[in-house]
Amino acid sequence: MRASQTEKLCRSDFACFYPIQTRWGDNDLYGHVNNVTYYAYFDSVINRFLIERGGLDIHQGNVIGFIVASQCAYFKPVAYPEQLECGLRVTRIGHSSVDYQLGLFWHNDNLLRAQGSLTHVFVDRETHKPVAVSGQLHDGLAAISRSLIDTL
Amino acid sequence: MRASQTEKLCRSDFACFYPIQTRWGDNDLYGHVNNVTYYAYFDSVINRFLIERGGLDIHQGNVIGFIVASQCAYFKPVAYPEQLECGLRVTRIGHSSVDYQLGLFWHNDNLLRAQGSLTHVFVDRETHKPVAVSGQLHDGLAAISRSLIDTL
Amino acid sequence: MRASQTEKLCRSDFACFYPIQTRWGDNDLYGHVNNVTYYAYFDSVINRFLIERGGLDIHQGNVIGFIVASQCAYFKPVAYPEQLECGLRVTRIGHSSVDYQLGLFWHNDNLLRAQGSLTHVFVDRETHKPVAVSGQLHDGLAAISRSLIDTL
Amino acid sequence: MRASQTEKLCRSDFACFYPIQTRWGDNDLYGHVNNVTYYAYFDSVINRFLIERGGLDIHQGNVIGFIVASQCAYFKPVAYPEQLECGLRVTRIGHSSVDYQLGLFWHNDNLLRAQGSLTHVFVDRETHKPVAVSGQLHDGLAAISRSLIDTL
Repeated sequence: MRASQTEKLCRSDFACFYPIQTRWGDNDLYGHVNNVTYYAYFDSVINRFLIERGGLDIHQGNVIGFIVASQCAYFKPVAYPEQLECGLRVTRIGHSSVDYQLGLFWHNDNLLRAQGSLTHVFVDRETHKPVAVSGQLHDGLAAISRSLIDTL
Repeated sequence: MRASQTEKLCRSDFACFYPIQTRWGDNDLYGHVNNVTYYAYFDSVINRFLIERGGLDIHQGNVIGFIVASQCAYFKPVAYPEQLECGLRVTRIGHSSVDYQLGLFWHNDNLLRAQGSLTHVFVDRETHKPVAVSGQLHDGLAAISRSLIDTL
Repeated sequence: MRASQTEKLCRSDFACFYPIQTRWGDNDLYGHVNNVTYYAYFDSVINRFLIERGGLDIHQGNVIGFIVASQCAYFKPVAYPEQLECGLRVTRIGHSSVDYQLGLFWHNDNLLRAQGSLTHVFVDRETHKPVAVSGQLHDGLAAISRSLIDTL
Repeated sequence: MRASQTEKLCRSDFACFYPIQTRWGDNDLYGHVNNVTYYAYFDSVINRFLIERGGLDIHQGNVIGFIVASQCAYFKPVAYPEQLECGLRVTRIGHSSVDYQLGLFWHNDNLLRAQGSLTHVFVDRETHKPVAVSGQLHDGLAAISRSLIDTL
């Protein structure tokens, strides 16, 4: 993925938003949030969604999610101590995997600063074998999936 | 510093509070926020205070702050995705250095979960020689210093 | 990028290798290195290469590199305290940008555990305007570029 | 703890040493390793020691270690991409807790750059109740404890 090849999303493409608090250590030597840290934002947003709306129990649940692919295009830098917001939507729900898209914005600003895509595979906590996306997890994900949004 | 030797502070001891957003990666293998990460919270709170109320310009200013000592006592674990709050006060303002105390709480909860102390030395950005704590920086720090609070 | 769509590279595809030391905090709650941390490995390998072989002066140089796109496919988990190795090659040198590929392996093991791609744009430290990849930087990058490797 | 109040140790005070690999993201905006990151070094050194020489099984063992207190005095900055070395010794073995001291050096250099102290309490993984330091764990820790070193 080259930055120029990414179709840029806008705020209205995302189904839900989460605030992101930057930290001093997010800024690297060059004065902006390091490219690595964007994935920490994405990771935290996705898991918070799964916990709050998908019934994921990260401590005791039988099902856990492994990220198998991730990517990000960086359009405009962000920096501590800015307040950010991250949009989330689901673009595909497979048998045991899910694709997400995320967009990073300044709080109260419409310019897309970075855009990410991640893929979760849900597996059994003990055996690490894939498990079906079902029940509350499926319902939560479906509620923020693109197709549902499009048809509303 | 042994945990048992630390005099525990309470909410009313702190001069100001900042929200702390936890991240997925803050939890370590044992399911709680890793001991290291508390310092990332403290660091971010102190710098945010200095930027917002002490006039610190982290990108262009002539004066920067180096941490020369830090410590933390951990009383009760915290974990992502909990919302936390961090109290801050200044316990000493020297010629070029400042001592801070910080207390970590759950949002809307009075139980002190961890308590930290850090010392900043302010130096010239180029020469790294200590500079006097003066002007807006001094005023901001003095406004949250213990002695001032005590006398209010 | 879906994991299944990535052409997997092998050790002989990479031009140089760097050791990677894992840290306690790299493991997340699920016991493996968190997906975010792979990018910290990649970032550190690329910059070390640029410093040692491309003449990059991260503190004082006129030219700095911004990551504008990154991606990673995760094939097999790794975990602290394992010793890792990261292969690096350049797949494209543009006027002011460079594409890298990276592969993560266990030390002394041939199984590709993760594969990443990142794109650097080199810019002027002050103006942030793109600058040409030239001189020692170009020579260093060209020495590990795929086409040169292929023709050796 | 103020930096000036710390009795500085030297290389010969430590019982064992571990290499520390710095990362790009360890450097903060001011160009040196951030104060937070030193604890990530300490944490990783202690756990590696416990795994390799104390029989700690971080994934499946019944006993896990919680840090209840930590402190660091920073004497001279370090920065990526420097290669570091961290010395470790045990200064107290209690019934269920252990005090460590750590010293950070450049590779092949004798100047103490930072010095830390951490306290582990060992607890049952499920109940989180303190457990006695015994068996291989005790023997490993005793082998690097100050008193033993002093009497050799």
